[in-house]
Amino acid sequence: MTSNDITAAILIIGNEILSGRTQDANTQFIASRLSKRGVRLCEVRVVRDIKEDIIEATHALRKKYRYVFTTGGIGPTHDDITADCIAEAFGTAIDVNSEARAILKKYYDENGTEMNEARLRMARIPHGATLIHNPVSAAPGFKIGNVFVMAGVPKIMQSMFDHVETMIESGPPVLSNSVTCNLREGDIADGLARVQNDFPDIEIGSYPGMGVKGHNVSVVLRGTDETRLAAATEQVITVITDKGGEPRAVALRS
Amino acid sequence: MTSNDITAAILIIGNEILSGRTQDANTQFIASRLSKRGVRLCEVRVVRDIKEDIIEATHALRKKYRYVFTTGGIGPTHDDITADCIAEAFGTAIDVNSEARAILKKYYDENGTEMNEARLRMARIPHGATLIHNPVSAAPGFKIGNVFVMAGVPKIMQSMFDHVETMIESGPPVLSNSVTCNLREGDIADGLARVQNDFPDIEIGSYPGMGVKGHNVSVVLRGTDETRLAAATEQVITVITDKGGEPRAVALRS
Repeated sequence: MTSNDITAAILIIGNEILSGRTQDANTQFIASRLSKRGVRLCEVRVVRDIKEDIIEATHALRKKYRYVFTTGGIGPTHDDITADCIAEAFGTAIDVNSEARAILKKYYDENGTEMNEARLRMARIPHGATLIHNPVSAAPGFKIGNVFVMAGVPKIMQSMFDHVETMIESGPPVLSNSVTCNLREGDIADGLARVQNDFPDIEIGSYPGMGVKGHNVSVVLRGTDETRLAAATEQVITVITDKGGEPRAVALRS
Repeated sequence: MTSNDITAAILIIGNEILSGRTQDANTQFIASRLSKRGVRLCEVRVVRDIKEDIIEATHALRKKYRYVFTTGGIGPTHDDITADCIAEAFGTAIDVNSEARAILKKYYDENGTEMNEARLRMARIPHGATLIHNPVSAAPGFKIGNVFVMAGVPKIMQSMFDHVETMIESGPPVLSNSVTCNLREGDIADGLARVQNDFPDIEIGSYPGMGVKGHNVSVVLRGTDETRLAAATEQVITVITDKGGEPRAVALRS
């Protein structure tokens, strides 16, 4: 990582993830999209729907990373406290936002749904925030400072992320290759360490697996320089063939 | 939450999760198992394979929660740095552990695999730690203080967790009910807030969804007192029927 990397963190607000009820799907979606834009996801935190926990995590992450993406807790029910927590973290007031209210009113009018007190809660936006569009169910997210507040439902979050992408900077895309082989990690560990040593600018990860044909290992190489990435990948292939393995290389993204 | 709750956190060490390459499966497994044992998972962090990040997260979590479960980074390759980081976090030395070496030697002898320098790395265990058995691939995890260090490969981690469960205290099991209905969150938000107010000892979460038949919402109630849980569930059902919805209640665990 270089000092001018564009860094990011995700803050997932959700008791349902922590209870094991729901499998988080938002991390992988955001991680993949950030990776394509050359933004480096450095940390993910999942916290409970508890005010102090949300505020503490928001503070910690927004100071440490360029961008923070939150998911969850912006609906109309009593357990949706994210907007209030973010306002408090930024020391700003929160009120019904006229633009957000107009968006909701139009949506509910068109759907013949009653605009009640609970739904109006979804128009409460911290002062100074910019709205994030929600093409799926209207209720907007918002951006304040370097924090992007999105819904937790994957389909809605994903639709918001299209707008979020227009609000963030891009870095050089991260390219990656994967080399899979029929050896075990312990067979190629020394060789991989040598390649990593020769290529400090390429991140080399080794991931063991167990398939129907027995143990295998995937070596994933990531970097922004195509030539260096190709050279490191060649060396990994040599490490594997020298140990009698059969490498299978795949360019994951270009 | 009461002050004598048994609390826990998970620390996932893994660039492959942060790059979007791999979907984390360990959180949901551990979360479900902890929930059944009455241990409350309060936080999850995913950090990079970077020494400072791992140590900082270990410190923060082990001070804050009763138990910390780490996954990932204990294999034989250059990117497996978890054991060294945990040793450093505890200010203790790390060396080849004779018990761990014997376990590995037996396993490799039986499998006709060479015990090389890289594999011997997996026998490096911080001083003062207790081994966690690995019935799948032998290389052990370990417990030091309130931190349990496990493999990242789900199948291996899960086999280790059977042993881990014998090393932790249990609390009263968390019971939960789910009530699903064909309404939208905004229809029942006021009613749910009233129920939550009447039952501060029951955690009530509202999770919107979008199925083929349109919007729906699942209300999940969690608590340790069966009678209180049943009473709160009845009230939620009344809230839904009062709004013309068709509730479907399911006892998730007992």
